Amino acid sequence: MKTSLDCIPCLLRQSLDAARLVSSSPSVHEQIVRDVLHWTAEMDLNQSPPAIAQRIHRLLRELTGVSDPYREAKDWQNRIAMELVPKFRAEVKSAKNPLLMAARLAIAGNVIDMGSNGNLTEADIQQSLSKALTEPFFGEEDRFQQAIAQAKSVLYLADNAGEIAFDQLLVEQIIKQVSPERVTLVVRGAPVLNDATLIDVQIVGIDRIVEVINNGSDAPGTILNDCSEEFRRRFAEADLIVAKGQGNFETLNNNPSNIFFLFKVKCAVIANLVNQPIGMQMLV
Amino acid sequence: MKTSLDCIPCLLRQSLDAARLVSSSPSVHEQIVRDVLHWTAEMDLNQSPPAIAQRIHRLLRELTGVSDPYREAKDWQNRIAMELVPKFRAEVKSAKNPLLMAARLAIAGNVIDMGSNGNLTEADIQQSLSKALTEPFFGEEDRFQQAIAQAKSVLYLADNAGEIAFDQLLVEQIIKQVSPERVTLVVRGAPVLNDATLIDVQIVGIDRIVEVINNGSDAPGTILNDCSEEFRRRFAEADLIVAKGQGNFETLNNNPSNIFFLFKVKCAVIANLVNQPIGMQMLV
Repeated sequence: MKTSLDCIPCLLRQSLDAARLVSSSPSVHEQIVRDVLHWTAEMDLNQSPPAIAQRIHRLLRELTGVSDPYREAKDWQNRIAMELVPKFRAEVKSAKNPLLMAARLAIAGNVIDMGSNGNLTEADIQQSLSKALTEPFFGEEDRFQQAIAQAKSVLYLADNAGEIAFDQLLVEQIIKQVSPERVTLVVRGAPVLNDATLIDVQIVGIDRIVEVINNGSDAPGTILNDCSEEFRRRFAEADLIVAKGQGNFETLNNNPSNIFFLFKVKCAVIANLVNQPIGMQMLV
Repeated sequence: MKTSLDCIPCLLRQSLDAARLVSSSPSVHEQIVRDVLHWTAEMDLNQSPPAIAQRIHRLLRELTGVSDPYREAKDWQNRIAMELVPKFRAEVKSAKNPLLMAARLAIAGNVIDMGSNGNLTEADIQQSLSKALTEPFFGEEDRFQQAIAQAKSVLYLADNAGEIAFDQLLVEQIIKQVSPERVTLVVRGAPVLNDATLIDVQIVGIDRIVEVINNGSDAPGTILNDCSEEFRRRFAEADLIVAKGQGNFETLNNNPSNIFFLFKVKCAVIANLVNQPIGMQMLV
């Protein structure tokens, strides 16, 4: 998708949140905000919002000299999510439809997004998960089940740290229907925001059940022409793609139809685009 | 007060709201947003937020060729407020303390602010007023009553259209204690946002009970060195100043102590400054 004018105030707010997270210096905060204002004044609105966010977070890392500013945040998100997962794994196991139950939990886990909520708390995570099965849901569940049942291979594009512990529940269900050797989890190629990278996968342990690769890019989404050649090949060859999170939706929503997007609607721009309210759990 | 970095995303959102209100052309919206991004990238943060908003709204008027873009909105705000006022005037009359009751209603009327809420509805206005007496209130009510009782002259700085119908209730109480000849209501010198100008005063009719002047400025606040010499003289000579709204607070909060500020807290920056939550009714 293109960037809406409405995205600009939000990207600025996100830049300021991020600046404050990684530096306590007001002059660094100001420099980041002014730089982002300069770029966005000239920005090409045909780019997707994650393309702008990618530039913002590169600048942030350059200015602060911190290569992974969200490392600490990601650690606690992984820890909290992993504490919650055993209880939810039991629920998936006893569910009438374990695949859909796991999909719902994986979508609920998408609340762990520091792009849309820089002040995320443990309570936010618990609330999203406890409401996962009662909150409104918009999705093509039947088509998703059929697609998984028929898929010869699945490329699962992860989104955030913490969230990937819930992705694991869904991956565990997918490999009951698709050979584990034909399921691949993809994370970002370098730290950006609290998006998951290889280290998060290792902490959570999904790499013990399926192959994990990175996409070679530091965008908080999947900008194909910014990804590695190897990733693009895998993307083109995949029989079915499961893409988690709004960032993957924003960058891939105009792509071919063998993709399912699983995410929570987090802003008015996306709410308007998908014609669903903020907070809605989407499987489309 | 100075402009906080947190004000910048909000000023941008306000620019976009305003652009959409006055023009249906996406290219005009984009031009306004890009111009505002350019300025804010270079802006002097020692200026107050209304100084930036003043520039934004000048540009808006220039680009669209509309001298009073909010005229229609102000007309319905005046109409709705005037419909509500008789009922509340009766409540003031029967109140134990009519001055404080009127002050609370005048503060509640400060919800009619299209800077903080571009999509203001009639329901928002009714809700704010119906909650005026039950919602939390932070104020120096005793000191305010004493100041009014002792004042030799009062300069009342109005804020928004519609809201001024509720200001009238307070002015009616003030002139019971201060000679009407010594009470002056001040409006903006030219249209900006939905701030009240002379025409709104005439529609509502406050000009029939006290003198009304304008401050010579088109800022949505009171930037003294941008106001007319005549206004500055009156400001300096006033025994007591009653300043309505966040814009007047943002521009005058570092001034001498003969000012009472009456407003609703509408954003996190002000909430942090006054150490009160958003929505709080303030009399300080």
